[in-house]
Amino acid sequence: MGSLTVPPGSLWGAQTQRSIQNFPIGGPESLMPLEIVYGMATLKKCCALYNSSKGKLSKDKAKAIMEAADEVIKGEWDEQFPLVIYQTGSGTQTNMNINEVLSNLAILKLGGEVGSKSVHPNDDCNMGQSSNDSFPTAMHIACTSVLLNRTLPSLKFLSSSLSKKVTEFNDVIKIGRTHCQDATPLTLGQEFSGYQAQVDYAVKRVEGTLPSLYRLALGGTAVGTGLNTSLGYDVEIANLIAEETGVPFVTAPNKFEALAAHDSLVEASGAMNVVACSLNKIANDLRLLGSGPRSGLGELNLPANEPGSSIMPGKVNPTQCEALSMACCRAIGNTATVTAGGMQGHFELNVFKPVMVSAVLDTMRVLGDAAKSFAVRCVDGVTVNEGRVEELLRGSLMLVTALNCRIGYDEASRIAKDAHKRGITLREAAVESGKVTGEQFDEWVRPEDMIGPK
Amino acid sequence: MGSLTVPPGSLWGAQTQRSIQNFPIGGPESLMPLEIVYGMATLKKCCALYNSSKGKLSKDKAKAIMEAADEVIKGEWDEQFPLVIYQTGSGTQTNMNINEVLSNLAILKLGGEVGSKSVHPNDDCNMGQSSNDSFPTAMHIACTSVLLNRTLPSLKFLSSSLSKKVTEFNDVIKIGRTHCQDATPLTLGQEFSGYQAQVDYAVKRVEGTLPSLYRLALGGTAVGTGLNTSLGYDVEIANLIAEETGVPFVTAPNKFEALAAHDSLVEASGAMNVVACSLNKIANDLRLLGSGPRSGLGELNLPANEPGSSIMPGKVNPTQCEALSMACCRAIGNTATVTAGGMQGHFELNVFKPVMVSAVLDTMRVLGDAAKSFAVRCVDGVTVNEGRVEELLRGSLMLVTALNCRIGYDEASRIAKDAHKRGITLREAAVESGKVTGEQFDEWVRPEDMIGPK
Amino acid sequence: MGSLTVPPGSLWGAQTQRSIQNFPIGGPESLMPLEIVYGMATLKKCCALYNSSKGKLSKDKAKAIMEAADEVIKGEWDEQFPLVIYQTGSGTQTNMNINEVLSNLAILKLGGEVGSKSVHPNDDCNMGQSSNDSFPTAMHIACTSVLLNRTLPSLKFLSSSLSKKVTEFNDVIKIGRTHCQDATPLTLGQEFSGYQAQVDYAVKRVEGTLPSLYRLALGGTAVGTGLNTSLGYDVEIANLIAEETGVPFVTAPNKFEALAAHDSLVEASGAMNVVACSLNKIANDLRLLGSGPRSGLGELNLPANEPGSSIMPGKVNPTQCEALSMACCRAIGNTATVTAGGMQGHFELNVFKPVMVSAVLDTMRVLGDAAKSFAVRCVDGVTVNEGRVEELLRGSLMLVTALNCRIGYDEASRIAKDAHKRGITLREAAVESGKVTGEQFDEWVRPEDMIGPK
Amino acid sequence: MGSLTVPPGSLWGAQTQRSIQNFPIGGPESLMPLEIVYGMATLKKCCALYNSSKGKLSKDKAKAIMEAADEVIKGEWDEQFPLVIYQTGSGTQTNMNINEVLSNLAILKLGGEVGSKSVHPNDDCNMGQSSNDSFPTAMHIACTSVLLNRTLPSLKFLSSSLSKKVTEFNDVIKIGRTHCQDATPLTLGQEFSGYQAQVDYAVKRVEGTLPSLYRLALGGTAVGTGLNTSLGYDVEIANLIAEETGVPFVTAPNKFEALAAHDSLVEASGAMNVVACSLNKIANDLRLLGSGPRSGLGELNLPANEPGSSIMPGKVNPTQCEALSMACCRAIGNTATVTAGGMQGHFELNVFKPVMVSAVLDTMRVLGDAAKSFAVRCVDGVTVNEGRVEELLRGSLMLVTALNCRIGYDEASRIAKDAHKRGITLREAAVESGKVTGEQFDEWVRPEDMIGPK
Repeated sequence: MGSLTVPPGSLWGAQTQRSIQNFPIGGPESLMPLEIVYGMATLKKCCALYNSSKGKLSKDKAKAIMEAADEVIKGEWDEQFPLVIYQTGSGTQTNMNINEVLSNLAILKLGGEVGSKSVHPNDDCNMGQSSNDSFPTAMHIACTSVLLNRTLPSLKFLSSSLSKKVTEFNDVIKIGRTHCQDATPLTLGQEFSGYQAQVDYAVKRVEGTLPSLYRLALGGTAVGTGLNTSLGYDVEIANLIAEETGVPFVTAPNKFEALAAHDSLVEASGAMNVVACSLNKIANDLRLLGSGPRSGLGELNLPANEPGSSIMPGKVNPTQCEALSMACCRAIGNTATVTAGGMQGHFELNVFKPVMVSAVLDTMRVLGDAAKSFAVRCVDGVTVNEGRVEELLRGSLMLVTALNCRIGYDEASRIAKDAHKRGITLREAAVESGKVTGEQFDEWVRPEDMIGPK
Repeated sequence: MGSLTVPPGSLWGAQTQRSIQNFPIGGPESLMPLEIVYGMATLKKCCALYNSSKGKLSKDKAKAIMEAADEVIKGEWDEQFPLVIYQTGSGTQTNMNINEVLSNLAILKLGGEVGSKSVHPNDDCNMGQSSNDSFPTAMHIACTSVLLNRTLPSLKFLSSSLSKKVTEFNDVIKIGRTHCQDATPLTLGQEFSGYQAQVDYAVKRVEGTLPSLYRLALGGTAVGTGLNTSLGYDVEIANLIAEETGVPFVTAPNKFEALAAHDSLVEASGAMNVVACSLNKIANDLRLLGSGPRSGLGELNLPANEPGSSIMPGKVNPTQCEALSMACCRAIGNTATVTAGGMQGHFELNVFKPVMVSAVLDTMRVLGDAAKSFAVRCVDGVTVNEGRVEELLRGSLMLVTALNCRIGYDEASRIAKDAHKRGITLREAAVESGKVTGEQFDEWVRPEDMIGPK
Repeated sequence: MGSLTVPPGSLWGAQTQRSIQNFPIGGPESLMPLEIVYGMATLKKCCALYNSSKGKLSKDKAKAIMEAADEVIKGEWDEQFPLVIYQTGSGTQTNMNINEVLSNLAILKLGGEVGSKSVHPNDDCNMGQSSNDSFPTAMHIACTSVLLNRTLPSLKFLSSSLSKKVTEFNDVIKIGRTHCQDATPLTLGQEFSGYQAQVDYAVKRVEGTLPSLYRLALGGTAVGTGLNTSLGYDVEIANLIAEETGVPFVTAPNKFEALAAHDSLVEASGAMNVVACSLNKIANDLRLLGSGPRSGLGELNLPANEPGSSIMPGKVNPTQCEALSMACCRAIGNTATVTAGGMQGHFELNVFKPVMVSAVLDTMRVLGDAAKSFAVRCVDGVTVNEGRVEELLRGSLMLVTALNCRIGYDEASRIAKDAHKRGITLREAAVESGKVTGEQFDEWVRPEDMIGPK
Repeated sequence: MGSLTVPPGSLWGAQTQRSIQNFPIGGPESLMPLEIVYGMATLKKCCALYNSSKGKLSKDKAKAIMEAADEVIKGEWDEQFPLVIYQTGSGTQTNMNINEVLSNLAILKLGGEVGSKSVHPNDDCNMGQSSNDSFPTAMHIACTSVLLNRTLPSLKFLSSSLSKKVTEFNDVIKIGRTHCQDATPLTLGQEFSGYQAQVDYAVKRVEGTLPSLYRLALGGTAVGTGLNTSLGYDVEIANLIAEETGVPFVTAPNKFEALAAHDSLVEASGAMNVVACSLNKIANDLRLLGSGPRSGLGELNLPANEPGSSIMPGKVNPTQCEALSMACCRAIGNTATVTAGGMQGHFELNVFKPVMVSAVLDTMRVLGDAAKSFAVRCVDGVTVNEGRVEELLRGSLMLVTALNCRIGYDEASRIAKDAHKRGITLREAAVESGKVTGEQFDEWVRPEDMIGPK
């Protein structure tokens, strides 16, 4: 395949360099996610420990590899991982990138020369592994790490922010809207409780995908059979990774499934897709309820985080809603990417691993971050425009529903239509109809009696 | 494969019956679209004509087959086509369904006995064809037929409805909204002109997909080579189909592409996907601009086509907007289906034909129909709520933009913020600022001067 | 809104008729799913029971309504539900369709006259309900019914079919394939165990969506507050529906969420989307492993269910794989539809209910049915082409992996490349290399030793 | 909004800094694409020229701004654009980022002090623009630039590579495959001509989206009316941008559409989605036709660009096919993102601009790059495995089709089935059948006569 020159200062080797040259595809946004690099380093650390404990790898080499892996995981060598996701579909080249870098870092620690292979990238760093089982293992380590440390805490934070508003807005009675049309009243707290319920379910939905992600492929080696490993290796190595990460990983009960399909990623992406729908709904509601300042619904005051427009002074825009809903669009598209890759595996190996994990990690990051930012910079600062809320409630015709069970559907309907047609209040129309006295109206049509069952 | 009993009265034969029994999948909504049946009948009529003119098929048989095909095209035998789309991916079984029914209808016309094969479903009705080239030909006939007769006229109708409103609303100056926030004014006619532009481009986008759909696969036979046909057959048969339908069909320059990929359907679906985005935007705007009656934006009055709610009297909902936007969701999903099928062909044949064409025809139908219904029952009847429009315009702070080039960005911004904070009008705040006199304000801040360049 | 004529013989009334006229969109495939009709009838039966038990509805009327509902549920009045899904987005018109039909059926039972409203569609049949809470309740009843009775049993059937093959193929050692390239061996039973694992997880994933679907909106009435109901009604009515259906429904803890968002449907659709990826993978593998008869991989014999081609005699196609993978495409598209609807709700009501539930029910039906048909007509009849499997295994170069730990990676690689280049067997190349004797080769390179860890 | 500290050495100002702090969402992959930065700089250069020519901006300032813009366009200041796409949905903050950086660069050129606003970011750099019209203008400049300079040349390159193979493989007769099953023969050149046709249509489809992208929003300012611009400004500025870029831009005929909807991006993404389907099909075919080396179809030899596996020596994988098909998955997902954003605009402004343009640019880059890499490193080096092709052709049963028109469908079918059952050649079975002599067989069944019409 010809000779290759690795740039001076690089710790990667020929296989990485070859991949750089063979896949000039995309830009910085196409880089293999660092979470995958860290996940690979984590498993290689555990493998070195295991192999050393079984006497297959010298203690010295193992120690050096493990220290090197720790440095990689800490982010000290990020620039040594220059490959993009558009490479071999098993992530083999990223596996070799890690092997080469760990090998050279370990060699340096042991006083050797970079490139000497005295700690061998394949024989030592990749011992007992294949790209085919190590890359999907790193995918699961990466996804759970982001979910547990970034996405879920952010969603919980948002739930908590909403929860505070549920309490704060508990007594604010407002007009409801269905079909974007005036409807019977509810409290603003009730409205926000719907949002909170969505986010609480979102947390549950995301948590529900963890068990699938806890199953690790490692030990399946090339095709799932575990060829070239020892009996029990898969269980032990999963335990070691669980200990190392503090995440309850287990070995996948069926390694053939774990290599040939990535339904677990499709599942995780699908859960995030539901979250995206939920958050988009909430973001949309807030931008509309906060629309104005004068010519919108204007029930909510959204916090002013920045000047809104370069031409229109004084305008403040619902930018957190916008950022969040754009993140939702991204998540929805990422799900389509993950689905397209997930539906296409052949035989013993799905070869859409890098694009799938890149997309799902992107979703986990941006949906979590955007939810957190939205909580901190929008929800937490939302206040109610009480005058406006009261004005809209009192002007509404839909309080007529309260008359339904008093004077019947048809009469009530007639009164509301009359008020609408003539531009008068419901009370005026009701009294004029002769079906209701003013006193009865005031007694029967009380918004505070209309926000729950009797 | 065992013996089969065809139900009494059926004109289909064993192959159709076998398909019924082998594919008990889905319900009535999964039936092969009738447009495909008619398209198949159309091409078989043309083939009979061609074969008879070349002396390969007797005049009598040809005439009987052609008459039978005409009856099928007229919809007289719809119930004879009971197969679902979840069958063989080339549509072979539907091809045989047509062959069997045409055969029996022709036999009856010639005084023979149903099932006698005296007009043979394969040797006569399928002469010179393969499922692999005839089914995609029927797909293109079906799609162009629906586009030309249903979708495009409906979109043009909608454009015309919008155009009338552009004129009607030419002088209605209203507040603009960006980020759902108050912005500088425009006329309602201008706003509707944006919608009309979207629909006019929609028409162009859909028309732009026709040339791909005009290319017919017929003559490629089984793998695209045209084996078992005569030189020139492909061109002649395309001409015959063009004459029969009045649509400018041509033979596909490359038959391998025409059988192995259905990029033309993905293209058509993609164009409809843009249309769906356009229509969804318009439907959303109308439902929000028409929101109310008291507590929404309320600038537009949407026609009341039906009682809106079973519990809330007097409420009228934007149901045409809702139906249209649901059709848009359907179209977006159908595009995903067509894409999933279109990306997956193998070798000489794409075997996702039925699901692809079913999805794209569904889109063409419902998006066209919903657009027409929306035009007739919503856009045509929209009126402006002039009092409300004027009230929102006058109360707006954003007219301040007109001061930008008079007193500078920073001052203008300060005035708007002051008005906002204190709940006073822009004029009041401007005058109080000392930067502008009342006269200047009235001269400078004129909405009618703010709806175009100087 | 003008007068309307209901066709003679119809049991529906003016509101249904108006919807027919106002929404001429789509064809038979656009009809409101019957499962929704049955779900609505179920809840109305339970409401009649509840209302009668509380003395709000006379025993006679309740009995008549309940009997009418039972007939509807049994499918005796399907043709009385002519509305399409492209209507009001809350399903109000379908709610009224049910109310009108039940009203008239009940009137007939009580000896009254159709259209007399002596059992009133609103006051009696819709008592204590709103479209806004009853339609989503029917959605959940419909989805759980299809999942529990159709989708899940079908998936379990497929798992069982695959399980039998896992056993049957337990001892068939075959070449593995990764990157579509020859890899180390595995047993055919192992390969099928991967498929079975996918389907078993599919069952779990689908079951995991049930708890969300068990939550019923009924009792939320128009905006989620439960206005016009009595305290405890929501819990009691959920219990009645649970008893009636035998499904463990509960009242939704938050009714605002249950009306304003349909994340539960997005969740269910997302789970089915994973199932679609899984089944597509399996279908693809079987069609490729069964490719041939002479020029494909040819390891499996797929059952011949029908003649394959109208022009190529003797050819039998993987039609069940094709039908299944088309159903997968449909499911993927339906998820996009459900997502598009689910992300768009406004305020107190999501108005994409009909299109969402139509799409998700379609998926549940066709993916279940296609999986069952695939199990019965493909998996159950698959046999192994043992001669071919053996031939491919023995010819493979990839058994060289067994030499990896004997003579090192580099030497093993060299031997494999040599065999490849010269078109000789691995054994020949190995012996010629001088690194391995023939005896060693036979002892070390044993496929039966390569299908698991040591 | 509190005070802010801009990091030392930064040329950006407070608005950029505020955005950094307000939108901590995503990582490096979420950065605003540099093509947008360059597009913004391009239009600001043209605006400076225009404003200076009209006497609104001093020559000195204009010159400094234009020089600064040139440096930005050359990529000299990339690190000054740190914002992510998850910001305000109009791209306002990126507009201000450009304004601030250009302002400071221009100030430095004029000997002023960074941050002094002596060249004002709003009054000078943003003169006559709004984010609302300048950002979409930059989107169109960016998209056309990538399409014209990267995507289209790459697709044309791929077409040319395929075209050479069409010629090279002109005489290689091989077995066709439909339903993944053996079918009648074709030449390998014909097969590749289908791929080339797909790519040629891809080029046409992408070119077909350019006219929409040539329409520029600039001159619409805040809501599309062109407030604060002079008559004719829109036409002139589009001309200037066309001159500057050499791309035939024109002013958008309807500015309301150009701000409020980005159907043009949905259209472009949709065209790329078709391209993705096409390329995925081609990549899939090549990976399967090149499968082996011993146990696959093995008709093609794909070039060995890198060692394939870290555990299996000697294995070479179809990595370019894999990278390309992963890029296709990405493109398909990006289309879903663009669709989700495109369907959601409100009133006068679509606020999904950054996520939409980011997704569509990503597609344009990676699909173009991957196609080029696939052409250079896979297609160009593909060779035919002639022995294998001949072996598969001769062993095939499907040549029986040639007997169809000699001895009839039923007899031909019987012969093929007999050969299949008994594992003998077609010729043997044909002769044994008594319907055909050996001589007739050899005369009638000639693959070279089966690759076209008579």
